[in-house]
Amino acid sequence: MKFSNRWYCVARASEVSTQPMEQVICDRPIVLFRTAETGKLVALENRCPHRQAPLSMGKVIGDDIMCIYHGWIMDATGQCVYIPGQDNVASSVRVGSYPVVVKWGMIWLWIGDADKVDEGLIPKMDWTEDDEQSSVFIRFYVKADYQLMADNLLDLSHSDFLHASSFGSQAGQRAETDHIKAELETWADEDAVNSVRTLRNVILSPMAAAWASTDQPVTRTHRTRWTPPNNINIELIIENDENKVTIHHDHIMTPETGQSCHYFMIWTRDFAVHSGYPSDEDVRREQTSVIGAEDIPIVEAQQRNRIRFNDPADIPGVGDKFLGAVHRRIAELEKEAKQKSAA
Amino acid sequence: MKFSNRWYCVARASEVSTQPMEQVICDRPIVLFRTAETGKLVALENRCPHRQAPLSMGKVIGDDIMCIYHGWIMDATGQCVYIPGQDNVASSVRVGSYPVVVKWGMIWLWIGDADKVDEGLIPKMDWTEDDEQSSVFIRFYVKADYQLMADNLLDLSHSDFLHASSFGSQAGQRAETDHIKAELETWADEDAVNSVRTLRNVILSPMAAAWASTDQPVTRTHRTRWTPPNNINIELIIENDENKVTIHHDHIMTPETGQSCHYFMIWTRDFAVHSGYPSDEDVRREQTSVIGAEDIPIVEAQQRNRIRFNDPADIPGVGDKFLGAVHRRIAELEKEAKQKSAA
Amino acid sequence: MKFSNRWYCVARASEVSTQPMEQVICDRPIVLFRTAETGKLVALENRCPHRQAPLSMGKVIGDDIMCIYHGWIMDATGQCVYIPGQDNVASSVRVGSYPVVVKWGMIWLWIGDADKVDEGLIPKMDWTEDDEQSSVFIRFYVKADYQLMADNLLDLSHSDFLHASSFGSQAGQRAETDHIKAELETWADEDAVNSVRTLRNVILSPMAAAWASTDQPVTRTHRTRWTPPNNINIELIIENDENKVTIHHDHIMTPETGQSCHYFMIWTRDFAVHSGYPSDEDVRREQTSVIGAEDIPIVEAQQRNRIRFNDPADIPGVGDKFLGAVHRRIAELEKEAKQKSAA
Repeated sequence: MKFSNRWYCVARASEVSTQPMEQVICDRPIVLFRTAETGKLVALENRCPHRQAPLSMGKVIGDDIMCIYHGWIMDATGQCVYIPGQDNVASSVRVGSYPVVVKWGMIWLWIGDADKVDEGLIPKMDWTEDDEQSSVFIRFYVKADYQLMADNLLDLSHSDFLHASSFGSQAGQRAETDHIKAELETWADEDAVNSVRTLRNVILSPMAAAWASTDQPVTRTHRTRWTPPNNINIELIIENDENKVTIHHDHIMTPETGQSCHYFMIWTRDFAVHSGYPSDEDVRREQTSVIGAEDIPIVEAQQRNRIRFNDPADIPGVGDKFLGAVHRRIAELEKEAKQKSAA
Repeated sequence: MKFSNRWYCVARASEVSTQPMEQVICDRPIVLFRTAETGKLVALENRCPHRQAPLSMGKVIGDDIMCIYHGWIMDATGQCVYIPGQDNVASSVRVGSYPVVVKWGMIWLWIGDADKVDEGLIPKMDWTEDDEQSSVFIRFYVKADYQLMADNLLDLSHSDFLHASSFGSQAGQRAETDHIKAELETWADEDAVNSVRTLRNVILSPMAAAWASTDQPVTRTHRTRWTPPNNINIELIIENDENKVTIHHDHIMTPETGQSCHYFMIWTRDFAVHSGYPSDEDVRREQTSVIGAEDIPIVEAQQRNRIRFNDPADIPGVGDKFLGAVHRRIAELEKEAKQKSAA
Repeated sequence: MKFSNRWYCVARASEVSTQPMEQVICDRPIVLFRTAETGKLVALENRCPHRQAPLSMGKVIGDDIMCIYHGWIMDATGQCVYIPGQDNVASSVRVGSYPVVVKWGMIWLWIGDADKVDEGLIPKMDWTEDDEQSSVFIRFYVKADYQLMADNLLDLSHSDFLHASSFGSQAGQRAETDHIKAELETWADEDAVNSVRTLRNVILSPMAAAWASTDQPVTRTHRTRWTPPNNINIELIIENDENKVTIHHDHIMTPETGQSCHYFMIWTRDFAVHSGYPSDEDVRREQTSVIGAEDIPIVEAQQRNRIRFNDPADIPGVGDKFLGAVHRRIAELEKEAKQKSAA
């Protein structure tokens, strides 16, 4: 589902300038830009009220945006303030606008009622602003419903199969290390659903072993917090007697359409911050190639298969405890939202 | 709308030879060719009545066309005249044909009743045959309804925004030259709608200034005549005390489908005809690149936006006087056509 | 139509290994693989029952296949036999499986009732296993209904137009060699329809003349046997006083979707088997280029035209006697199948 009265992440703050750019968010074409005079961040419907040309092809003039087709000018609220050759412009000549804020280096767009805007609903990601840690931001584009991309993160057991030779391990593979039992706890607070998943005595794959500078068995703990619409904050702790490292990887999914999504990822480490392995560039290369070559292809294939097989019912397994809890929470939130709008 | 009992331009005369070619016109796949013996121009439904293979893959034999699949032969009226191994062919074995004529170097195809064919309905473009002027023909393909491409020409105020640094000027831009008031007159005669738009004291962009060999302010006059289905003949006069040049640019739009069109343009100048700037090659390069990089992208973006935003109502401005008059005339002609066909 | 209780050819035997591959057959995504231990050939629905990821992205482990997403394992019958972290798996956790056999070097998949599997329904192609003959296998992909591709073979008169300068001759072309009368006989036996088509006194095109090592007129005889769903076995005999050569070309069409098909072709010659022209490589090059450049483009164009012209009725000619007989047989078999399933 797509939530109303929620923040949707639409871009990294540094992606938006006085050069207008389009992003389709929840099926809505939106133009994003900063005004030239005050540098204010603006999000409008991406159309001119005159003849529907996209404002993203226009140009920012002062604190306004001019449609390049016939020169009509809209201000930062979407109100048309100038039509060439006309002395007056009716107040009804306007396009819709969206509240936008910058937090944690990302741009968040509010879809919902303007009087319910609440910055407290943006997930906390303090670690992205901590000088003792280093964050890398990566943007992906996925041809699948954003829920399928989120579900990927809600069942981290995939990391020992899909990522067995990159991020993960072979823990859980039959006849290899299936003596390793995973512990998985989940609980809800407010709108969030949380889980802790611990695996002990894990032999890591080479990439993960290099992060932790160990080739000995480790305890691998994932603390995950899901908040609506589909923000997933994961704290990964890898530790043994030799070493302990912590990685926050934050995954923010935003629907483009019902079958495609924007996927923003921030990977924050508390080790090798100023030198050593991995550098920011190493992180970017590793994450881009593994998520791009392992996660996204299988999620897109899932999407295609759901269409080709006419949406068959999934069969949950023991690993789906957290995913199931989140799906139930989504259904509850949907029901609450309907009741509120009916009231 | 798509008019019945009208001529649709389908190609430049020199594009059609004994090698059959396909053009989709108003959603109809049509094969065009010249016969080998008499050189007659022919337009037929592009299918063999036998098994529906396209005749455009076949070959012209004498004054007929042979389907390459099983050798059936159709004459220039679409009647099948030969089936291999058969002594007789029933007169019912045939495909549809269309009246076609060549005028002003272009091929015009009649869609409508055969007994209403009237060459007088082809727009007059005498200048294209004047030895003292030079014409350049360019074909474009546009992924938009042909009306949106026509509308581009029906509101020439776009040239001071979209073409501010190529064909146009900055006349009309807020706080720059908005003291320039445009005069726009429109009137109808027969099926046509006409307009004259005059701007005085205009500083031209470099390209237009070079045509007129002047860097002084000019008076720029556009005389436009619209005739159905969507033929737009524009006479552009640029003049000041130093010089006066006249350009006819004729724009003929033909629907391919409801969301794509063929766009034929002829640009005729009365200056630099035998030498000097611009040469025919200069004109071809300039027009191809400006229309291809400025007009067509915004028209195609308009088409996509109309679909994405579920066809919102346009809001007309003062510059849409002529466009509005043409749209009203189209509605009237459509109504008349319905009444005639009901009578 | 697509037949139930029939074998569909899905691949050459050598195409399938322990590396899973997907083929869409009759709109069904199917994963094909050989097991690692016993080398058994397996065909399953290409989805994991857990979350619908394609099994073709997974890997074969022993005699089973593991989904790469979360490690669920299915055996060769489609039954899930292992879920990581779970002690038991319900017998209802399974995906569909299909009977498959290898015959004549090709893999045949049964679509229909498991208790009606009958290997006798696979067409006979003994010549592909004869040491005195040499067979070349080629796979094509066609964006058209498999019936249109089959119809191509059911009216071989096309070879004197479409292939006039490659495989065929100009026999039947008006005013050239239309004195050549073709003899065409057809008859049915069991589910099959057969024909013999003989042309006498034919001057072959260069390619066919080189096969038969003759530039003299020949008698060209095609014996064709059609069996459902759309298997077409053709024996071509080219003979005159100098020489006689026999070619079996077998064409097996399998629907991918209603508008695309797999097309398998085996070309078997009884001449130049060990040396001389053509070699296997010559055959592969000639057949690939002629079928790819002459047959498939016209069949795909037919498919597009049927859609664009809203499926007009074909007009049969004298050459369609065999094609008509096959189409009637298909209609009868379809009727019988409905009556059986209603009984």
